[in-house]
Amino acid sequence: MSTTPSTTSRVPSEIDIEALRTLLDGRWRAVRADVRAQLGERRLHPDPEWSVAEHRARVAEGMRLLAESGRPRLGFSARHGGRDDIGGSVTSIEMLAYGDLSLMVKAGVQWGLFGGAVQALGTEAHHARYLPAIMDYSLPGCFAMTETGHGSNVQALETTAGYDPATGEFVVHTPSQAARKDYIGNAAVDGRLAVVFAQLLTPGGRHGVHALLVPIRDREGRPCPGVTIADCGPKAGLNGVDNGRLSFDRVRVPRDALLNRYGDVDPDGRYTSPIDNESRRFFTMLGTLVRGRVSVAGAAQSATQTALAIAIRYGLTRRQFAAPGSTSELPVLDYLAHQRRLLPALATTYALRFAQQALVETLHEVQTGGTTDESAQRELETRAAGIKAVATWHATATIQACREACGGAGYLAENRLPQLKADTDVFTTFEGDNTVLLQLVAKGLLTRYRDHVGDLDTLGMIRFITEQMADIVAEHTAARRLAQHLHEPRPDDPDWHHSLFADREDHILAGLTRRLRRATAPGADPFAVFNAAQDHVLAAARAHVDRLVLDTFTAAIQRCPDRGVRELLDRLRALHALDHIAADRGWFLEHGRLTPNQAKAVTATLNHLCAELRPHARTLVDGFDIPEAWLDAAIVRP
Amino acid sequence: MSTTPSTTSRVPSEIDIEALRTLLDGRWRAVRADVRAQLGERRLHPDPEWSVAEHRARVAEGMRLLAESGRPRLGFSARHGGRDDIGGSVTSIEMLAYGDLSLMVKAGVQWGLFGGAVQALGTEAHHARYLPAIMDYSLPGCFAMTETGHGSNVQALETTAGYDPATGEFVVHTPSQAARKDYIGNAAVDGRLAVVFAQLLTPGGRHGVHALLVPIRDREGRPCPGVTIADCGPKAGLNGVDNGRLSFDRVRVPRDALLNRYGDVDPDGRYTSPIDNESRRFFTMLGTLVRGRVSVAGAAQSATQTALAIAIRYGLTRRQFAAPGSTSELPVLDYLAHQRRLLPALATTYALRFAQQALVETLHEVQTGGTTDESAQRELETRAAGIKAVATWHATATIQACREACGGAGYLAENRLPQLKADTDVFTTFEGDNTVLLQLVAKGLLTRYRDHVGDLDTLGMIRFITEQMADIVAEHTAARRLAQHLHEPRPDDPDWHHSLFADREDHILAGLTRRLRRATAPGADPFAVFNAAQDHVLAAARAHVDRLVLDTFTAAIQRCPDRGVRELLDRLRALHALDHIAADRGWFLEHGRLTPNQAKAVTATLNHLCAELRPHARTLVDGFDIPEAWLDAAIVRP
Repeated sequence: MSTTPSTTSRVPSEIDIEALRTLLDGRWRAVRADVRAQLGERRLHPDPEWSVAEHRARVAEGMRLLAESGRPRLGFSARHGGRDDIGGSVTSIEMLAYGDLSLMVKAGVQWGLFGGAVQALGTEAHHARYLPAIMDYSLPGCFAMTETGHGSNVQALETTAGYDPATGEFVVHTPSQAARKDYIGNAAVDGRLAVVFAQLLTPGGRHGVHALLVPIRDREGRPCPGVTIADCGPKAGLNGVDNGRLSFDRVRVPRDALLNRYGDVDPDGRYTSPIDNESRRFFTMLGTLVRGRVSVAGAAQSATQTALAIAIRYGLTRRQFAAPGSTSELPVLDYLAHQRRLLPALATTYALRFAQQALVETLHEVQTGGTTDESAQRELETRAAGIKAVATWHATATIQACREACGGAGYLAENRLPQLKADTDVFTTFEGDNTVLLQLVAKGLLTRYRDHVGDLDTLGMIRFITEQMADIVAEHTAARRLAQHLHEPRPDDPDWHHSLFADREDHILAGLTRRLRRATAPGADPFAVFNAAQDHVLAAARAHVDRLVLDTFTAAIQRCPDRGVRELLDRLRALHALDHIAADRGWFLEHGRLTPNQAKAVTATLNHLCAELRPHARTLVDGFDIPEAWLDAAIVRP
Repeated sequence: MSTTPSTTSRVPSEIDIEALRTLLDGRWRAVRADVRAQLGERRLHPDPEWSVAEHRARVAEGMRLLAESGRPRLGFSARHGGRDDIGGSVTSIEMLAYGDLSLMVKAGVQWGLFGGAVQALGTEAHHARYLPAIMDYSLPGCFAMTETGHGSNVQALETTAGYDPATGEFVVHTPSQAARKDYIGNAAVDGRLAVVFAQLLTPGGRHGVHALLVPIRDREGRPCPGVTIADCGPKAGLNGVDNGRLSFDRVRVPRDALLNRYGDVDPDGRYTSPIDNESRRFFTMLGTLVRGRVSVAGAAQSATQTALAIAIRYGLTRRQFAAPGSTSELPVLDYLAHQRRLLPALATTYALRFAQQALVETLHEVQTGGTTDESAQRELETRAAGIKAVATWHATATIQACREACGGAGYLAENRLPQLKADTDVFTTFEGDNTVLLQLVAKGLLTRYRDHVGDLDTLGMIRFITEQMADIVAEHTAARRLAQHLHEPRPDDPDWHHSLFADREDHILAGLTRRLRRATAPGADPFAVFNAAQDHVLAAARAHVDRLVLDTFTAAIQRCPDRGVRELLDRLRALHALDHIAADRGWFLEHGRLTPNQAKAVTATLNHLCAELRPHARTLVDGFDIPEAWLDAAIVRP
């Protein structure tokens, strides 16, 4: 490989911004336009002087505005006044994250989690009775899954719902402090009805976690009998959302409160379900709720784009230090260190935007077309988990970098970055802790999305995985052959990037499979084997998501009709790829995928691409088409 | 090198916690004990429900408590009622950061920056007149250096102080919006007198930046005539500190308002200075203010320790998921991924604690002994800059990791982590932007702390540097020989770690020197050469600081009399070193310093050390001896 980066840029100096925006807006461009038209001239972000109560009141007002817009109907079934437009629904929630993330979360709780659970886990009677009031926000609700003692391992929730055949009721109960529902959005002030996840008990036995509708407040806002509600108090951010804690003291609800699509109890207490295996049933229920993760991934990206728009615009006007022999100071974005801080992060933000578009389209297809193909459903869940983890960590790191890139000004509330950082921070651990989500991704890869793996215990799963190993190794070898085809690649060659990413993914996965097989050996301690491989599991998941994100970026460029935009994005894609390769060059060198000279060329090309893209930095952040009123930071005001 | 990590731990199961605490407390143990005795039973951290005004009022109350303790006297000269104990002074400020970082910053502004500037830049008359009132806080003051337009490049400040021989006064003036003093602690509410940095003008010409004492408020708190004061408004954190903006409209102060140790103006307007070169004079003045950076480095570490104590204690009680075949869930700290998140960060926190101790001792020696050795002063500044940068970035990353490791609970204000994160966030950019500080470190290394380099322009400096190159290369070669001596090192061998760190430092520095020499070639564009090397400059600085930190850790272990503690810390030091080597293994592989098999062994040993140290996690955080009242997070309450 030549160690000299190519020096002739093909990127035209003038870029057609509308072509860029069309590509970035994607399939649900009309929904984005509708949100911009309704809200684009309002300041949506919270005033830092607001008290928690004031912020909550403003968000409540925002909820009413949204309900009036009719957009919350997008995600619900047309039979009950909805629009059957899942992709549009997720896009509309993602758009709110440019404004106030508290409003985005509150909307996500009401229409995504609460309404989504009624729609996905309930049946016709529930839909007819509740969906209209959920859509128009006359019935504010909660999604009460997490407990103080169980966040990641939700299969082990402790709340119980025991059926009493004598009265035809379920008794919902919180048996311990650890079993109280915790961090529940909409619970502290507004929620009236909650989807409560609880262990279902009948005279015949336990049936695992199911969801029931439990009233928690009356119309006057008083807690219902037997329901104790506490406020979670101030949080790092998202203080416009009323998170609360719910405890139930033997609260009785009628039999039809059970959201009974995947499990039902007849008046005599007999339990029936279309899915026999308890674990598989539970994960099927959870799988229908994937929309929440997709929304969080999107919202994290909106916030990241806002932060980058602020930091990059500031970097173009803020001047500090003069070049030797000169007296006029330079814009800080002219410095390599500043470029390296912001431009690769911007490139990855673009990459994730296209990955998100593809994810939303898949979600839309799977959920609109019905979920008969179990493997497609599992693959969707895996992708959603992976992109959510990667996008939210990227948000945390990038908003931090933007804050630092703006110096002391970045620390002032008037410049928006503190709120963006504080609000998005929880995204790395809510809707699934990222570390746990990446383990789900690895499991999806290892089991190749076969649903019946859900029926197996852990060791059964490992046996299944190792049976698949021959296939994986064969693929891996093919990928390596591809890589070896490419003699002397240019450091900015997209095919070379793809083959490095794909080969790494296959190699890590094959190695992991071999390692986990040890757990099935006689006398092995399976926990010790799994635990020792946990970093390997996470690396396999990351490598998979990274490859996926790179490939969707490449595909997005190919479908853009505008040549100038294609050429600009081609450089940006190279910057994204090389930044990732540079960050993990230890692995590539360790495994002989890069020579030392190639690794050095990667860094040199990275720096070169930063210089090449520097003149386009403003165009690239303008491409996100964030209304000026939503970008209103003191340091970027004209 | 054997790829199998050693498996027999020598660490005894019982550690003498007092021996560990004695080592960690270091030379100023008595000062630490004094602070713990005065404040250790009080809750110091802010209530998240406090308004900005309430928080400021509490911090003001804390300031009075501190003044009463007499500890602020530690840092001032005995002639005026001080104690001449610089090390004790810095330690006492560092201790406050376990409680409320706003209080620490406010104390740092009053007694470190404001009082420190009067002491270091003023002369006898200023000391006699002001120090007593500064020490007892009857005269709250500000350190007004940064301007809206100039933070890093303070030599280019725009505020002017022109001498008027007709009246014998200086006229202090803010010529533009960009010249207003910004982010000034103590300015928005409490400060009465400010040390104002301004371009000194006399009828004879400009003399560069000097400091003057300018009254900004009268005793009733009203702004003085010609002084405009604004509040910076809410910030990401540190809202107990009243940061403000100061503008001066031709404010007249008497001639003796000039802090005239390094430059004076006689009644007729003649300027004199013991240092002829303007740039050198300015950097000499700045150098006397190094204490601020040392304090911030220490405070960042206190906050990091608090966050780790909370997250690790929670990780030992929080259980989630059961091992295959078991029904009882495991403490999350038993998972490798959780260990990898927290334990290497804990190891580096120990490393930095010892580096900080050594830094404070050097500061104490240099400032107590007077600063006649210019090279020792420059080396101190370089170390302070480097440790400040590394320790504050470590704080940001580690507190973030702790927040995520506590899941949703980590997002609640009641668990302290949000406040710790928000408060410390600004440390990466205040008292010197970390990226700029690392460039100072590299400059110190390249010029080998020669003071006269301050007299040279940039190109002159580069010529000087390249003249030194022969020496550097010779050292480098010697270091490499050392490294090559060590055939087949064990992955946890301290000598091998040291030689890897030292060799990397020398190699990067030598390469950088060669690269910068290009700027002196005829026709070269010096800015282009410097800018293209900026990542190389930062890498050189990091490599230097990393080596320094590792060496102080090793030295600290050697001086510990307790064998059990030594053996525990020996493992912790190895974890710290290997975590750094693993993170930069791309470089070591690229430069042939690690073979691929050695690199893999590094990761394997890292995981092994995590498992080995896991039983000692609680002991290691208890070693910081943070009073329980200061650790009061809901999730760690018994």
